[in-house]
Amino acid sequence: MTIRAKAPLRDLGEDFPTRAAAVLAALRERAPRVHCITNVVAQSFTANLLLALGAAPSMTLSEDEIEDFVTEADALLVNLGTFDAQRRMAAPIAIAAAKKAGIPWALDPVFIERSPKRAEFARSLLDFRPDLVRANGEEMMALFGLERARDRYGFHDLVVAETGEVDRVEDGRRGVSILNGHPLMAKVTAMGCAGGAAMAAFLAVEPDAFLAASCALVVLGVAGERAGKVASGPGSFAVAYLDAIHDLDEARILKRARVAA
Amino acid sequence: MTIRAKAPLRDLGEDFPTRAAAVLAALRERAPRVHCITNVVAQSFTANLLLALGAAPSMTLSEDEIEDFVTEADALLVNLGTFDAQRRMAAPIAIAAAKKAGIPWALDPVFIERSPKRAEFARSLLDFRPDLVRANGEEMMALFGLERARDRYGFHDLVVAETGEVDRVEDGRRGVSILNGHPLMAKVTAMGCAGGAAMAAFLAVEPDAFLAASCALVVLGVAGERAGKVASGPGSFAVAYLDAIHDLDEARILKRARVAA
Amino acid sequence: MTIRAKAPLRDLGEDFPTRAAAVLAALRERAPRVHCITNVVAQSFTANLLLALGAAPSMTLSEDEIEDFVTEADALLVNLGTFDAQRRMAAPIAIAAAKKAGIPWALDPVFIERSPKRAEFARSLLDFRPDLVRANGEEMMALFGLERARDRYGFHDLVVAETGEVDRVEDGRRGVSILNGHPLMAKVTAMGCAGGAAMAAFLAVEPDAFLAASCALVVLGVAGERAGKVASGPGSFAVAYLDAIHDLDEARILKRARVAA
Repeated sequence: MTIRAKAPLRDLGEDFPTRAAAVLAALRERAPRVHCITNVVAQSFTANLLLALGAAPSMTLSEDEIEDFVTEADALLVNLGTFDAQRRMAAPIAIAAAKKAGIPWALDPVFIERSPKRAEFARSLLDFRPDLVRANGEEMMALFGLERARDRYGFHDLVVAETGEVDRVEDGRRGVSILNGHPLMAKVTAMGCAGGAAMAAFLAVEPDAFLAASCALVVLGVAGERAGKVASGPGSFAVAYLDAIHDLDEARILKRARVAA
Repeated sequence: MTIRAKAPLRDLGEDFPTRAAAVLAALRERAPRVHCITNVVAQSFTANLLLALGAAPSMTLSEDEIEDFVTEADALLVNLGTFDAQRRMAAPIAIAAAKKAGIPWALDPVFIERSPKRAEFARSLLDFRPDLVRANGEEMMALFGLERARDRYGFHDLVVAETGEVDRVEDGRRGVSILNGHPLMAKVTAMGCAGGAAMAAFLAVEPDAFLAASCALVVLGVAGERAGKVASGPGSFAVAYLDAIHDLDEARILKRARVAA
Repeated sequence: MTIRAKAPLRDLGEDFPTRAAAVLAALRERAPRVHCITNVVAQSFTANLLLALGAAPSMTLSEDEIEDFVTEADALLVNLGTFDAQRRMAAPIAIAAAKKAGIPWALDPVFIERSPKRAEFARSLLDFRPDLVRANGEEMMALFGLERARDRYGFHDLVVAETGEVDRVEDGRRGVSILNGHPLMAKVTAMGCAGGAAMAAFLAVEPDAFLAASCALVVLGVAGERAGKVASGPGSFAVAYLDAIHDLDEARILKRARVAA
C-alpha cells in the first residue's frame, strides 16, 4: 500500500511555509505507516514523535517478518545508531522490500565518524539509493568524504539534509537553510534520530524528497521554538515538544517559519 | 512466592467501582513483583506504569536467569511486540516457571495480524493456557479466527480483554464493557502494552482473571480521563497519566467509573 | 582522550558542598564523553540524564566497535541490568579498552541478588578493579558477601557507593553519608541506573573516586528534592528531575546539601 500524494508539490517558492503546513495536513489526514529500523535509545521517543505527528510507527527487526511490515508501510527509516547483528541483517531485507513495494526510504548514519565498520556499512547502503540522507556535519563527512562534503555534496541523485544549529537541505539543484529550532533540542537524546523518522513520514506523503525533508525540518523547528517557550529545562522540553508537534497549526507555521536560500 | 488474595472477590455487581478501588488498594499494599517479557519500545514506560501503580517490575530475558526471576515473581506478562530469538526462547521457559510456581500469566499478542509467524507463535502459547489475553480487535481476530472472535470468543476457559475505544472483557460466562478512557491514549506509544502489564499486576492480587482485567481497565481508564484534563498534548498526557495512576483514590474511581454489561 | 582534572580535589572537608558545585561546574565545562554499557530499560533516561548534566553519552555494544568508542571516551559505565550475550561479550572488551586508555570505570551490578550467574559475572569483573561500585544494600551483599558488607566493605582499594534512603560512600579510609533525595526517586524506573552513569561522568572530571561519587550523589539528591517540590507524581517527577539537574546552580547546592560523616 502506498499513500503518496498523486502529484508532487511544486518547488520551493516564496510560499514555502504554506507548503510545509499543507504537507503536515496531508500527513495527518493519511496517517502513513512508517517502519523504523532505529537504535534502542531512540525507539520510544521516535514512536511518540511519529504518533504526535499523525503517523503510525512500527519497529520490528526480525528477519522473518520485517519484509511483511515494510511491504505494508508507506516509508522506511534506516538509522544506524545501534549497530548489532540483527539490524545489519534486517536493513538490506527492509530496503529491498521498500524498493519492491515502491516506497521511499531515508538513511540516518548515526555516529559513523566514530566507527570505521559502521561507516563502511553506511556507504554500502548508499548503493541502494536512499531517497534521503539525514546526518550532522561530521557524519556527512565520514559518509561522503571531505571533498564532496565541502562542495555541499553536489548530488543530482540524492537529497541530503544536514542538521545542526542551522539545518541545510540540498539536492544538487536546489538548496534551503532552515533557521528554526531551539538550543534545548541538543539536550534531549534521540531528538535528531526522531527527526530522521519524521522526515521518512513526510516522504510518505511528499514524493519530492527535497521538499519532504525541508518541510519536516520547518515543522520540527517551529515546534521546538514553541516548546522552548514553555519548558523549564530538557525534561519538560521533550514533553512540550511532543505537545507542540501534535498541536501545530498552519497559522503558527506561517508566522514562525524562517527559511533562506 | 505468591501473594494472591486468599479469597477471590465476588462477581461483577453494582458495586463494581468499589471493587476496582479495593483491588488497587490491595495491589498498593502488597507491591507484587511482575516479570515482563515485553517489547523494547514499551519496556521503560511499562516499568514506570507498574511503579506508579505500586508494583515492582523486572524485565530480564536471559535464558539462564529468567526462571529465577519468574519463580520469585507474582505474575508474568508475555508481550510479543518484539519478536526476536531471545524472546522466543525466553517465553516458554518463563511460562513453564510461572506454571510451576503457580503464578498467573497474561498474553499480549501485539501486531500478530501483520506477521504470520508471530501469529503462529502466539497460537502455540495458547496451549500453555494464559489466565488472560489482552489484544485489540484485529489481533483477537488473528489469534482466534473470525468465527470465534465474532461470537465474542465464547470461551469458558480463558478471559479475553479486547481493548479499543470501548474495552470489553469476556470469560464466556460474564462480560463487561469499560467506557472510561481518553483519545490521547492512542497517541502515546506502548500505552496498550503497559496496560497489559497492569493487568498482570492486577492478576497478582485478584485471582479471578475476569475481575482483575476489568478492574485494571477501570483504573487505567479513569486515570486516562484525569490525565486528559491536565494535558496539552500527547507528551504531557503520558506524564500526567503516570501521575494520575499514582495519585488515584477510591473517591475518584467511585465517581468516574463507567461500566456496562 | 582523557580530560581529567590536572590535580585531584582535596578530601572531604567542611566546604564539601562547595566542592560538589565545583566538580559539577568542571563537568559542564569539559562535557566528558561517557560510554555506557547499560540495560535496555535505562538507556534512554540515562542518556537524558547525562545530557542534562552536561556530559555526552554513547551506548554502543557491538564488539567490533566498542573499543573505538571507549578509547575516545572519558569514562565508562558497566551496568549489568540487561544480562545478554552481547553485553557479556562487550563488557570485558570495553573495560580492557578503558584500562589501556587510562580512563576510569564504574560497575553497577543491578539485581545480582536475584541471579547467581549474574552475581558470578559481577564478581569476575571486580578483578578488573573498577574505580567505583554503585549498588543497593542487597546487591552489595551479593557482591561482597555478608561479612565484608557488614564491615562496611573495608576496602582500601575500591570506592563503594551504596544507595538507598540514605546514600553511603566508603573507600576504607573515608566515609560519607548523603541525606539528600526524595521518595519519588524510587518510583521512576532507571533512576538508580542513571545515577550510576552520573557517577561515571563525575569520575571523568574528578579522579578521586570517593569525591566523585559523593559529589554526584549530592547533586542528584539536591536535584531530586527540587523536583519533588514541583512534581505531582512520578511522571512529572522524572521530567522535573532532568530540568532540576540542568538548572542546578552553586547557590542551591550550598544551601541544600546535607552530608554527614
